[in-house]
Amino acid sequence: MTASNDEKWIDKKISRRDMLKLSGIGVAGVAIGASGFGGVMKAMGYNVFEPVADSTTARNKVDFYGGHQSGINTAVQTHIYFASLNVLITSKKELQELFKKWTPLVVHLMNGELMVDLTTNTRVPTGDTGEAEGLDAANLSITFGVGPSLFEKFGISHLKPAELVDLPHFPKDQLQKEFTGGDLCIQACANDPQVAFHAVRNLVRAASGKVEIKWSQSGFNSFPAGGGTPRNLFAFKDGTVNPSITDEQDLNKVVWVDKGWLKGGSYLVARKIQMHLETWDRTSLKDQEATFGRYRDSGAALGKTKEFEDFDVEAKDEKGEYVMPDTSHVHLARKSGARILRRSYSYASGVMSNTGAHDAGLLFISFQKDPAQFVTVQNSLGRMDKMNEYITHRGSAVFACFPGVQKGSYLGEALFNAL
Amino acid sequence: MTASNDEKWIDKKISRRDMLKLSGIGVAGVAIGASGFGGVMKAMGYNVFEPVADSTTARNKVDFYGGHQSGINTAVQTHIYFASLNVLITSKKELQELFKKWTPLVVHLMNGELMVDLTTNTRVPTGDTGEAEGLDAANLSITFGVGPSLFEKFGISHLKPAELVDLPHFPKDQLQKEFTGGDLCIQACANDPQVAFHAVRNLVRAASGKVEIKWSQSGFNSFPAGGGTPRNLFAFKDGTVNPSITDEQDLNKVVWVDKGWLKGGSYLVARKIQMHLETWDRTSLKDQEATFGRYRDSGAALGKTKEFEDFDVEAKDEKGEYVMPDTSHVHLARKSGARILRRSYSYASGVMSNTGAHDAGLLFISFQKDPAQFVTVQNSLGRMDKMNEYITHRGSAVFACFPGVQKGSYLGEALFNAL
Repeated sequence: MTASNDEKWIDKKISRRDMLKLSGIGVAGVAIGASGFGGVMKAMGYNVFEPVADSTTARNKVDFYGGHQSGINTAVQTHIYFASLNVLITSKKELQELFKKWTPLVVHLMNGELMVDLTTNTRVPTGDTGEAEGLDAANLSITFGVGPSLFEKFGISHLKPAELVDLPHFPKDQLQKEFTGGDLCIQACANDPQVAFHAVRNLVRAASGKVEIKWSQSGFNSFPAGGGTPRNLFAFKDGTVNPSITDEQDLNKVVWVDKGWLKGGSYLVARKIQMHLETWDRTSLKDQEATFGRYRDSGAALGKTKEFEDFDVEAKDEKGEYVMPDTSHVHLARKSGARILRRSYSYASGVMSNTGAHDAGLLFISFQKDPAQFVTVQNSLGRMDKMNEYITHRGSAVFACFPGVQKGSYLGEALFNAL
Repeated sequence: MTASNDEKWIDKKISRRDMLKLSGIGVAGVAIGASGFGGVMKAMGYNVFEPVADSTTARNKVDFYGGHQSGINTAVQTHIYFASLNVLITSKKELQELFKKWTPLVVHLMNGELMVDLTTNTRVPTGDTGEAEGLDAANLSITFGVGPSLFEKFGISHLKPAELVDLPHFPKDQLQKEFTGGDLCIQACANDPQVAFHAVRNLVRAASGKVEIKWSQSGFNSFPAGGGTPRNLFAFKDGTVNPSITDEQDLNKVVWVDKGWLKGGSYLVARKIQMHLETWDRTSLKDQEATFGRYRDSGAALGKTKEFEDFDVEAKDEKGEYVMPDTSHVHLARKSGARILRRSYSYASGVMSNTGAHDAGLLFISFQKDPAQFVTVQNSLGRMDKMNEYITHRGSAVFACFPGVQKGSYLGEALFNAL
């Protein structure tokens, strides 16, 4: 390794004063050996994980600090790596320390910086797995949530919001344990798949022995060159009726929790939905459109011509039939009266080894101030939804996503303050 | 569906003369009903799949026609969807028809055009699944190859090149049947994952009942903003010693077959290699670099400072030890003397459900004029390669990729002419 390489591994956050302290230790004869500078600095009580600022110079950077976590009212990126984690520790103190440790690492990641261990020593594992080196921040957002099981595991059920309960069984659910539940989630979204994966990999690695991945799923969204709503793998535009992410007043109604330690946070619902592409592809365009309740090409509601044109779900034609069939997905979803912020990604994970059918579909993700909003929509779809013929829900989870973090604070502080 | 939508579904390739023919049929009272215009045109002997030209106006377009198939000496894209297929038909004629049918569809796909069925009828399935609508060509390349099993299946073993045999078992191989072999392959690479997936999905759909996917794998490459060699999930630059894709003379030596019906084609070797990230991440940087034989940061060979600087694999230091350890990956690969064109992609497909370990790694793909080149490299790595500790080969396949197509010809014509 060259000298210039070595320099790169020295975290720029070390102040000159600290270097003097280190030199002092060197003089005092403390061996800077196998444990590296990082170990030495920890040994001397140096806070390796002091607050890190949002970069003001990074390219394609989403800010970490603010009233809400990133990845909710952040413009949807092209890639996701979503991980649901089991927590292996049992002490509340350790859990709190974990979030304190994660917080500055998340800022580094979102800055597009290496999560560097303070070491020039190549004889220890590096502080960052390194595969994102040379890539920019790629609009990385990172969102943490806690699941219902976490509260039971730590004996803090009294702090579990009443809204945070496992989703009920829905008709046609065929959930698989290996894609369901989790104590914690990390949602990493970026405009580069390697940046998103790198974030989850490194956060889990930094918590080695404390958490393990229960299940994870990568996904993608492809945007038309001129912008606009991406199409899912059924080729229909997905997300048309979403609340605007810039309309804070509307988000207050739909997305942000307004009470308790979760105030400013939101509930994340994740559903791994397999889409039976072969069945869909044998269906006529007319039937596909009657299933969605929208035109495939324009995304407009049936009977309308423009994607964002409003529609009357009860409108009937001259024969007295619903313009938008009452078994269509959009008809039933609209009729539920409930609103959610969808932030879904497609996945294509090879084929089912038993059938050769595509193992592809939608990693459905929605944010809402109460999971009941999602439940209302899903119950309205119920057994009626024509879409049921073409999809199977394989995975499910719900998480309470912390409010945003102010500099000097850490992820989940409001929860730990309430302990 | 609006009038303007309807117009979109009429393929622009229908000449005015053909429209007159169709009108004539209409007048003669042939019902244009459930089978649609496409069916009618087929019924009247119209060649629905006439040659399609490379677009001269498409954005981000790779050309289809030429001396070689695309996806070999094409600049590496950011995404791949690789599919290995079982062929279900048994007649050589049907197989030939399939490639004749696929050829113009591939040109449409690479033009970023819809693979439109000639129909305005929404009561039949559409000619294109549609999820790439609004996306551009995204530098899509499509590469077809045939595996050893195809020749046995069709009783044409006499046409199977001697070089086209299943790869031997290598030490440490733990191949799984569900990721191994295949009669045919389709390698779709693009700068958009949805464009790559759409290509494979639609080509397989157009061959419904004739082929099925045996296994498939998506993958990605992330390039530094300023260009350069992408890093794999071990964070090392992958592909540094590749032949230049613009040095046709060198490619003639390394990549292009120069005899028989495969002249101008190449052999594709695919290996699904799981990378044990957790083990790697516990390894010191020094050991990682000794394993690769290169510096992680610069990509330079050990003892050198620049990525592309040549090195003497036999060089020793003052203690008489190899500068690049003789158990390192690059040392052993270089010592084999064999050269190949690598075109690999990383994958991150969730976690192993039994261990929670990352199911991630490398979809290794190389092109060579003889698979023996790959075998020589792999045998040189053998049991010595320090990398073995960190990887497991899970899947394997070898395919003979047809030469390029001239307009008016079709994929694999030289093979069918040799029948």
